[in-house]
Amino acid sequence: MRKHITGFSNPTVKYLRSLRDKKHRRRAGQLLVEGLRLLEDARSSGRVPQMLVMAEGREHDLLTRLEADVMAAGGEVIATTPDILSKITGKDNAQSVAGVFDEWDTSLAVLDRETAPIWLVAQALRDPGNLGTMLRTCDAVGAGGLILIDDCADPFSAEAVRASMGALFTVGLAQARWDEFLPWLRAGDGQLVAASLRDAVPYRGADYRAPCFILVGNESQGLPEDYEAACDLRVTMPMKGRADSLNAAVAGAVLAYEVLAAIDARR
Amino acid sequence: MRKHITGFSNPTVKYLRSLRDKKHRRRAGQLLVEGLRLLEDARSSGRVPQMLVMAEGREHDLLTRLEADVMAAGGEVIATTPDILSKITGKDNAQSVAGVFDEWDTSLAVLDRETAPIWLVAQALRDPGNLGTMLRTCDAVGAGGLILIDDCADPFSAEAVRASMGALFTVGLAQARWDEFLPWLRAGDGQLVAASLRDAVPYRGADYRAPCFILVGNESQGLPEDYEAACDLRVTMPMKGRADSLNAAVAGAVLAYEVLAAIDARR
Repeated sequence: MRKHITGFSNPTVKYLRSLRDKKHRRRAGQLLVEGLRLLEDARSSGRVPQMLVMAEGREHDLLTRLEADVMAAGGEVIATTPDILSKITGKDNAQSVAGVFDEWDTSLAVLDRETAPIWLVAQALRDPGNLGTMLRTCDAVGAGGLILIDDCADPFSAEAVRASMGALFTVGLAQARWDEFLPWLRAGDGQLVAASLRDAVPYRGADYRAPCFILVGNESQGLPEDYEAACDLRVTMPMKGRADSLNAAVAGAVLAYEVLAAIDARR
Repeated sequence: MRKHITGFSNPTVKYLRSLRDKKHRRRAGQLLVEGLRLLEDARSSGRVPQMLVMAEGREHDLLTRLEADVMAAGGEVIATTPDILSKITGKDNAQSVAGVFDEWDTSLAVLDRETAPIWLVAQALRDPGNLGTMLRTCDAVGAGGLILIDDCADPFSAEAVRASMGALFTVGLAQARWDEFLPWLRAGDGQLVAASLRDAVPYRGADYRAPCFILVGNESQGLPEDYEAACDLRVTMPMKGRADSLNAAVAGAVLAYEVLAAIDARR
């Protein structure tokens, strides 16, 4: 049965609003996902929200099915006004539906490196749009997922989820410090490749090996020198212009497609 | 001589604030660029602001030189409080300096296609971050510049300028409708290549020819069918996942690096 909320000061509204904030999100262990398309991506990946919040009077086959799934899983469905939805999402033109999910385990232990030939690894990635774009690239190149090293943007933020175009729900995700990541990597197969300017070979035609872990550094600082030194291979892309770097998500994607071609050619 | 502004309601402060808005920017024909690094990129590309606004008491060699250049060019230098700078830029942690530039001519006539082997072309690109990232990619691959087709985000917005990392000042930029662009392109040499899913060949090893114009479509709709049909070559990238598309700036960059490699190999 739907619960109806019409008051701006309702505690559920306040709670949902608070999920826009990283600190509250972390404490609650939940994230808010906006829009039917993303919710549908989640559903088709087997993730059903604990709570569904929709604008009164909206009808859509997908929405009806989603509502049924949420009910069947013991979740809650809330109908409210478009204004309250706008308040919850902080957007003037709010999507007509949002869902609340429990955050999931993002420890390295959840990743199985044997399942994919490519993995993206981002160190101190600060921009949630870049983070989401890298998740999306993982999906496109058939990478196993994205590993976030050190202090990165929050993968469960609305901006990251949106930029991922649903890939947050379909590819692997882990968060770790460098000194956890490196022992984990070295405990099994895996080539660590840095996008680098120091002591690097051309990225094109380099000797990539699956599973290949492509490491991209922070947007403004790049990778710390000792991180680069710990890599099995340092590759560089041509820089024909005045600047010496690419957008982090772009660098990761150009490398990922190169690695994909190299690995496919060897099969 | 510096002019000092201490009042929030000063008309210059109001004017500078208004430049955050596209409509006002267009009417004024000016843009606001924040931060010493971007202003220094502009200066080294021969663009000196008409007006420099800086926080009182900030000292920096580059800032001193920039101030002298602005004075020498007959421009205005304004010293103000950090709070007023924050108000102007709309950011809590405002950069300590901002500059006002006249927008420049972005008609196709300003581009010389013979000067570069690669050009990026974006159609209905809506995200200013993607736009700036594509300008940055142009710089990296040695592309002549970015051509914006139909209704795109504003390349002179703060977000686009910031994402370009200064490339706005160093690479070419044009804005045109499709029905201006196509005759312009066909009036000279130039291969038009679409990132496409329809009737396309693999992007890897395709027959790219300089000057190569890489056309990328809108973030959610992709390219209109008739635009694709007008291209000389349609190429597709592997999509191993659930989704059928990449972020627009990523797609443009992966293709641009492929074209660069193909053209370099033929030299």
